[in-house]
Amino acid sequence: MKISIAQLNYTNGSIVKNCEKIIARIHQAKNEGCELVIFSELSVCGTLPYDLLLRNDFIAQCNEELQKIARECTNITAIVGCPVVENGKLYNSAVCLRNGQIEQLFHKNYIEWDEQLYFTENSELKYLHSNNLNIAAIFANDIENQHIKQHCKHADCVVVLSSQAFCGNNEIHTQLAQIAKEISTPIIYGNCVGGEVSAVFEGASAVFSAEGKMEEMLPYFEEECKIFDVPCRDVACYVSVPQFGGGDVARYVSTNQPFNKIALTHNALVLALKDFCAKRNFKTATLGLSGGLDSAVVLALTVQALGSENVRVFLLPSEFSSQHSIDDAVALAEKLNVQYDTLSIVPLYNTALQTLQPIFEGLPFGLAEENIQSRLRGLLLMAASNKFGSIVLNTTNKSEAAVGYGTLYGDTNGALSILGDVYKTDVYRLAHYINRNEEIIPQNTITKAPSAELRPDQKDSDSLPDYEVLDAILYEFLENNQSQNEIIAKGFSPVVVEKTLRLVRMNEYKRFQFPPVVAVSTCAFTAQRRMPL
Amino acid sequence: MKISIAQLNYTNGSIVKNCEKIIARIHQAKNEGCELVIFSELSVCGTLPYDLLLRNDFIAQCNEELQKIARECTNITAIVGCPVVENGKLYNSAVCLRNGQIEQLFHKNYIEWDEQLYFTENSELKYLHSNNLNIAAIFANDIENQHIKQHCKHADCVVVLSSQAFCGNNEIHTQLAQIAKEISTPIIYGNCVGGEVSAVFEGASAVFSAEGKMEEMLPYFEEECKIFDVPCRDVACYVSVPQFGGGDVARYVSTNQPFNKIALTHNALVLALKDFCAKRNFKTATLGLSGGLDSAVVLALTVQALGSENVRVFLLPSEFSSQHSIDDAVALAEKLNVQYDTLSIVPLYNTALQTLQPIFEGLPFGLAEENIQSRLRGLLLMAASNKFGSIVLNTTNKSEAAVGYGTLYGDTNGALSILGDVYKTDVYRLAHYINRNEEIIPQNTITKAPSAELRPDQKDSDSLPDYEVLDAILYEFLENNQSQNEIIAKGFSPVVVEKTLRLVRMNEYKRFQFPPVVAVSTCAFTAQRRMPL
Repeated sequence: MKISIAQLNYTNGSIVKNCEKIIARIHQAKNEGCELVIFSELSVCGTLPYDLLLRNDFIAQCNEELQKIARECTNITAIVGCPVVENGKLYNSAVCLRNGQIEQLFHKNYIEWDEQLYFTENSELKYLHSNNLNIAAIFANDIENQHIKQHCKHADCVVVLSSQAFCGNNEIHTQLAQIAKEISTPIIYGNCVGGEVSAVFEGASAVFSAEGKMEEMLPYFEEECKIFDVPCRDVACYVSVPQFGGGDVARYVSTNQPFNKIALTHNALVLALKDFCAKRNFKTATLGLSGGLDSAVVLALTVQALGSENVRVFLLPSEFSSQHSIDDAVALAEKLNVQYDTLSIVPLYNTALQTLQPIFEGLPFGLAEENIQSRLRGLLLMAASNKFGSIVLNTTNKSEAAVGYGTLYGDTNGALSILGDVYKTDVYRLAHYINRNEEIIPQNTITKAPSAELRPDQKDSDSLPDYEVLDAILYEFLENNQSQNEIIAKGFSPVVVEKTLRLVRMNEYKRFQFPPVVAVSTCAFTAQRRMPL
Repeated sequence: MKISIAQLNYTNGSIVKNCEKIIARIHQAKNEGCELVIFSELSVCGTLPYDLLLRNDFIAQCNEELQKIARECTNITAIVGCPVVENGKLYNSAVCLRNGQIEQLFHKNYIEWDEQLYFTENSELKYLHSNNLNIAAIFANDIENQHIKQHCKHADCVVVLSSQAFCGNNEIHTQLAQIAKEISTPIIYGNCVGGEVSAVFEGASAVFSAEGKMEEMLPYFEEECKIFDVPCRDVACYVSVPQFGGGDVARYVSTNQPFNKIALTHNALVLALKDFCAKRNFKTATLGLSGGLDSAVVLALTVQALGSENVRVFLLPSEFSSQHSIDDAVALAEKLNVQYDTLSIVPLYNTALQTLQPIFEGLPFGLAEENIQSRLRGLLLMAASNKFGSIVLNTTNKSEAAVGYGTLYGDTNGALSILGDVYKTDVYRLAHYINRNEEIIPQNTITKAPSAELRPDQKDSDSLPDYEVLDAILYEFLENNQSQNEIIAKGFSPVVVEKTLRLVRMNEYKRFQFPPVVAVSTCAFTAQRRMPL
């Protein structure tokens, strides 16, 4: 049987646009002689439209477009993902379209995390039998569910519809390989691609043999439609974004696929930025270039995503800026062929101090004065953004966001945070990856000691532990949910651990007003972590 | 049987502090001869600790403190609310403590909204019988659930543990009265009070007779412990924050309690602000006073919450500020006896234009220049906040937040948004309520046409429909989830409706970075509404 996986890039909430894309692919698959074409989870509406799912008009429009797609399904069967109401309840469903109509609905069984707010779980397992093609559909993502495994075993092939976002690992592949082996049945895994603000759907759709071997894989982060000849007539369909416990991974079989986390993170961030602009009709972006590492990496990624002609940067030096910062920033802008302007913040800073003099008189230089500099930079970038219609990109990294090392309404400004889920130690790795073929980011930017340059001779290490130590502590606390005592027991300094965790807790309020962060881990701020202030 | 409702103010996530409060009340209730003392839902940990519920250390600490409370429960029975793990699953439970130990757990049945991300639902209904006191416990909030009703009928009295936030209506009372009547059983409803960033737990615990009459009500927004003599020995316990469909309300019996929405909204906002500061050890607040209505109302509320000696305001006029704005602002500050300073933004604004001159040269005055003024004000307020350790209060109202009428990183600044869930037309009502006994807010501030004063002779009505029309359209769209066509069908101008809804959709990005909004409706931004950008 000729089956096509359609790995497409949908737009969240844009039902008409998504359905045009689906219909075009159905026609193409028909021309290519496919019997079955598989789209991903919620392909009709995009993932995840949140409270739009509570609106009757939105659900009605999904249904209308579904009917439209169905009418195109003659001499071919399509399975699309769509929110569907049945008996007054909303389900996340795979919809089988055939003979010009909606043939059957298969509701997702295990509903995870955010989706619980909208969708009802389904515990029913069912098969679809018809003349030309036998499709058996099940819905769940619990690998331990014996009912579902039994159900899958009765099919010749299992189809998994997914909307899996990149999270810094390939556990989805190892898990699916394991399931295929366990049930001795091939699995066809269809995912979508595309940046959707915080989430970057990773693609990497794949086919696994009944022996648990990954036979083929579609690319990460690119649209592709591929046809497989699967020696089967019965297909089981599975809607799923499996959840993993960290400890369970070891027991899954390896897919023996090379997984370069930094290269994929790089590509995920580029796609996130590209789609953020494309899906909102922004063409150009701007950012402040400090000469430091974070803005340098963001600039290199932005040029990749939008082209150097669509990026404009500003050097915004103060009296505390070092000459090497300015030189490094200029070198990078020239290397990347990006328009740059230098706007000194010194006159504005002095005027701000004069304006505040009546109330600040006699008080020593401190945090207020440091933050004024950061906020003036934010103000100038936003002014340029307003004037030229460019989006401002945030350059804060995850380590800084975690401990609140940055000024609210200054450093934290931006339409999208590119590095907000990338620890500082990984920002260095990204810089080395960007420089893999030639020196793009100046060596001096990579090797010099990080500094915010908001007061004379300031260094990040004045306020924070070394980033290797800081990141290791943060990782244990944030990603592994370890307690203070557990982290100290791993050999970290109790004083440093206590201080770090206190900073994390104290700065929830800054993250509350942070721009959306592109998630490249399982624990991104704003997207995947909610804490009381 | 002497039963006490303990209507207390807990702190979200502060387990030790909450439990000290619970233990003190248990001792007091013992001295008063109570047999049973009832605390509210999640009283041990506060509501809702979000992802802290995913941490083993947090759950372990809840359990530790629960044991500590249990040891105090001799010669008295207490029911507290606490997250509890059973068979590897986390439940939102009522815990019955007696004879110095945890006697039995009753898990909440129907888990709603945000809580679904953390808690497992329970479908088991059970009673607790012992020598001295018979407690029957059920868990669900589905008024249509016949099993639960049957279960309740076998008790002499139903206890409802709740954590109900103020949402602008008293449907919880009408619904509980209806249930009591339907099952012919008295209901004791125990709620908590207190501001918890976005949520203001309203109190208003009450006792309903078997005839559906509200016999007694504890105050809104105040801690109180009250003892009731209930002629019963069997008690059914019910953990619940019922959900209501708007259309269902009419069929509930009336409680005949006067419900003054504006007065309660006023008190909710004052408590939210008071607790936001008290629970974070902030003593003082600051805000920009424009002479307009919104900042005037926020100032009056802030003086109520923190006292005039803890509030400091800044007049930040520009070349576009009118003299009456300055006069009205000064009159209000003097009336409320609040320290005020005037810092002109003119020098900063001119310096900003000079700084931007190289890139803005030859371009006309526009949004960029307007926003610079707002951001300079934000910068000065934040500088004062940093220098003096005061929090900045946001003064944006819900109508503005909805259509994005305000500058990101300027008007939108603040630690807490006081009016972000109050439509402009209700801000007028609040102003009249504040002036109910004497003129506090100058009459001119209330009667003049609203203006942002960012360009010559600007009026809100240049960009927006009249607030009566705007608010009516927004209400249909936001609170009633009506579609564009449905709203037009109610008689609004199609052009105005289309423009308004487009503005709402376009400005999700501003609200993403908005401060937490105090919710006083069922559809508050940041707290209760999540949309794709």
